[in-house]
Amino acid sequence: MSGLAKGVWAAALTPLAPDLSPDIPALAAHCRWLLANGCDGLAVLGTTGEANSFTLAERLAMLDGLSQAGIPGANLMPGTGCCAFPDAVALTKKAVEIGALGVLVLPPFYYKNVSDEGVFAYYARVIEDVGDSRLKLYLYHFPKLSGVAITKPLIERLMKAYPGVIAGLKDSMGDLEQTLDLVRGFPDLSILAGYDDGLLPVLDAGGAGCITACANIASPLAAKVVAALPDIKQAQLAQMRLTGVRRILEAYPMTAALKEVLARASGIDAWRGVRPPLVALPGDKAESLMNQLAASGFALAPLS
Amino acid sequence: MSGLAKGVWAAALTPLAPDLSPDIPALAAHCRWLLANGCDGLAVLGTTGEANSFTLAERLAMLDGLSQAGIPGANLMPGTGCCAFPDAVALTKKAVEIGALGVLVLPPFYYKNVSDEGVFAYYARVIEDVGDSRLKLYLYHFPKLSGVAITKPLIERLMKAYPGVIAGLKDSMGDLEQTLDLVRGFPDLSILAGYDDGLLPVLDAGGAGCITACANIASPLAAKVVAALPDIKQAQLAQMRLTGVRRILEAYPMTAALKEVLARASGIDAWRGVRPPLVALPGDKAESLMNQLAASGFALAPLS
Repeated sequence: MSGLAKGVWAAALTPLAPDLSPDIPALAAHCRWLLANGCDGLAVLGTTGEANSFTLAERLAMLDGLSQAGIPGANLMPGTGCCAFPDAVALTKKAVEIGALGVLVLPPFYYKNVSDEGVFAYYARVIEDVGDSRLKLYLYHFPKLSGVAITKPLIERLMKAYPGVIAGLKDSMGDLEQTLDLVRGFPDLSILAGYDDGLLPVLDAGGAGCITACANIASPLAAKVVAALPDIKQAQLAQMRLTGVRRILEAYPMTAALKEVLARASGIDAWRGVRPPLVALPGDKAESLMNQLAASGFALAPLS
Repeated sequence: MSGLAKGVWAAALTPLAPDLSPDIPALAAHCRWLLANGCDGLAVLGTTGEANSFTLAERLAMLDGLSQAGIPGANLMPGTGCCAFPDAVALTKKAVEIGALGVLVLPPFYYKNVSDEGVFAYYARVIEDVGDSRLKLYLYHFPKLSGVAITKPLIERLMKAYPGVIAGLKDSMGDLEQTLDLVRGFPDLSILAGYDDGLLPVLDAGGAGCITACANIASPLAAKVVAALPDIKQAQLAQMRLTGVRRILEAYPMTAALKEVLARASGIDAWRGVRPPLVALPGDKAESLMNQLAASGFALAPLS
């Protein structure tokens, strides 16, 4: 692992076979397509990728499969946070082994109202049990889903205890002021917005970029924001188009909506498959989503 | 699996070795002690037992270990709900294999605001993949931690789709009116309060009993509530004493507080061990807890 994550990263979807097992060749193909269409990297096995709905064995197989399919480690930031620290250790070791640029580590998310002390102990145990100087760890702040916040004192304590390991943070809360506060407060970290509308403001403040669900279909628009800089007017125009797609999608369950778009474009029905508790988009919602996207002028990049 | 769970069930703690691995002989000893001191059964691998902080392999080993140690399956209701349905299937199969009376199945708890449709799909998949007529499944309503409610329409739909499989429900929300509403609404189910103060009211309304954390140290008091019936005055006196212990404990992080009490009584320091993100009770809090319990007249049953 070397270098910090920057630019446009997709929180990559996980395509499933009809029996809901992960379709690893389809995942590798999706990753290749994303890298060819504006993505700097792939945050596989995240919230959008339904990581927590897969077993440890399935997740390890996905990482091995991506590596064997030739997806460069330098473009990968797998999600490896689990409620049980030994699972997080096993996944993180695998990510290091396949040369991933970094790992995005959710705090343990079952217990709520836990202390910074307990969350520190979790990250410390994972880092020490992995015990590999190549490890670059990105913290994941998403208390709306995880129930556990990554506080500034926690970041400081981790950076002090594990200098060179703590590489960055993904902030998925959607509060731009909070994200910019992290960009300013931690200039040595790669701070990534977990929401598309944060991309330009974060870049403009010296932050690293974004990791988003929408990038699964809208990465070329996100890439235009990055490419337009330092022309701020052009960048703003690109950001407006990206934000427009985001506004349409966020009215739907995100993973199901993105899979619907890819199912329609590819003609592959299995793309609609999600693991419970997620459900595929009902037909009427699928229609309205596609109509809204078409009306906005959105067009998916050619699928190969 | 036969018969429905009733009476006093402990949400059993999981003792750890100093390296934080599960101490299976100590777990079996704790379970035996609970069964000898007022517990009708053991809800191992629940919230109090830190189930989600253990890997699948660790949890399977714990169930095998309890069986090999001679803990009767008829007294066991292991928690087997996981975010990934294949993990829940594997754990549930193991529980059935060791003859457990039932399994307590948390809904998948990472995603929030999921639909009843998605939660139904999860339970349906677990039940069908286990595919064993001996399966007796208890639903776990604890949205404060899981983020996912078990609604009445969901219970009805599951009972209709899987008659004879859906055996009961643990309601940990602490709202007695809601629990009594379930007792009245589902007379064929074993409805168990997940909070000690619900024991007598639930029994009095025809419900099954309770599954609680406090039962790890206060099961003799809970058993007195059951034994006193139909003498409601005596039962109320016993309930008041039990509730008194609960009121003291609930001001502390529950798992750590219970482990502190058992560490002191046994002289075994390792009892204090918890997996992150939980943390052991700090020294000053441990002192005040012990002082409060002593002042209340509480005494632990002899540890043999």
